[in-house]
Amino acid sequence: MARREFHPEDHPFGVSVGRLVNRLAALPGVGRKSAERLANHLVSCSAAEALELANAIKDVKDRVKRCQKCFNLTDSELCPICRDPRRDQTVVCVVEQPKDVTSLEAAGVFTGTYHVLGGRIAPLEGIHPGDLTIEALLKRIRDDNVKELVMATNPTLEGDGTALFISNRLEGQPVNVTRLARGIATGSVLEFANREMLADALRGRQAF
Amino acid sequence: MARREFHPEDHPFGVSVGRLVNRLAALPGVGRKSAERLANHLVSCSAAEALELANAIKDVKDRVKRCQKCFNLTDSELCPICRDPRRDQTVVCVVEQPKDVTSLEAAGVFTGTYHVLGGRIAPLEGIHPGDLTIEALLKRIRDDNVKELVMATNPTLEGDGTALFISNRLEGQPVNVTRLARGIATGSVLEFANREMLADALRGRQAF
Repeated sequence: MARREFHPEDHPFGVSVGRLVNRLAALPGVGRKSAERLANHLVSCSAAEALELANAIKDVKDRVKRCQKCFNLTDSELCPICRDPRRDQTVVCVVEQPKDVTSLEAAGVFTGTYHVLGGRIAPLEGIHPGDLTIEALLKRIRDDNVKELVMATNPTLEGDGTALFISNRLEGQPVNVTRLARGIATGSVLEFANREMLADALRGRQAF
Repeated sequence: MARREFHPEDHPFGVSVGRLVNRLAALPGVGRKSAERLANHLVSCSAAEALELANAIKDVKDRVKRCQKCFNLTDSELCPICRDPRRDQTVVCVVEQPKDVTSLEAAGVFTGTYHVLGGRIAPLEGIHPGDLTIEALLKRIRDDNVKELVMATNPTLEGDGTALFISNRLEGQPVNVTRLARGIATGSVLEFANREMLADALRGRQAF
């Protein structure tokens, strides 16, 4: 469904509110009516509350970058998970996107570390192995003596293909490649799985 | 349901993203999972897009105030509706909140102006006629020779009571008091009515 164009100057509260509504309506999953409600809240809440949100947005743009080790998002050199001495550096869970780290962390059963590929191999979209962080992963496996690689790419054709590609690159090396148990329905995406499904999938991970 | 407390420093992307997620989750109608998705979008979208949203929020807090005439929200002395020479200043629609103006404007059938009361009379909550903009409305009716007052308070006990109170204050004056047709279900609130229901209600307004 095409999104209708609204001109901020036509808003009954004036152009400032009209612009804010347009910006909010551009966010994923926020429709025109939700954007109006959020804008109303931001107009009528305390200045401190609104400015804290505005500053939090600026702050992530200024400070958030990629972890030097695992390519997760972070506001320091290494992400909080790579920095944590309690996390096992020799067990690495491979995911497509940073949001998958958030989902798996919410399950709360994984004590290893992550590696964020930055996508999946999709030749039809022009995404090749060289566009992902696969070489950095292979180097990390050697340097850190990684014992287990848990494949947690999305259970789709391309996600499975990416896991298989990495698995093939590791043949003959002393690393145990596993993948998430198929508690997750093929064709769905990790982001929308609930934490129970993800916890089951992590506990029941299988030899690849 | 009580909202669980999350510590921003526990977020897998670090404290900057954690803080942003907490701020977003504090908005009305935004749960923890939506807040994560919005934060992910804001982290990965262009800096320009994110900063435009941050600046739009700051802008409304700096610039938006009450219209001097109708108490609607605006970023200038008079709101866009009071400034518009095509709007009939002698037909005034009385609403509780600025968001009701937005809803009625979306219906697109009303060519008069508005008056925002700032709430409804609710003695049990300590809200008395003096807390609303009723005196300013009465003055405006005299000064502008208002011919028709369309009561569009919410169709609740207190909204109806507020409309009745204003109507009683106008007895003997040459102003025709009407109210929205009851196309809107008693007990509901204007904000969630769709534009068709509101358009019908405006067209079929009845003598009060």
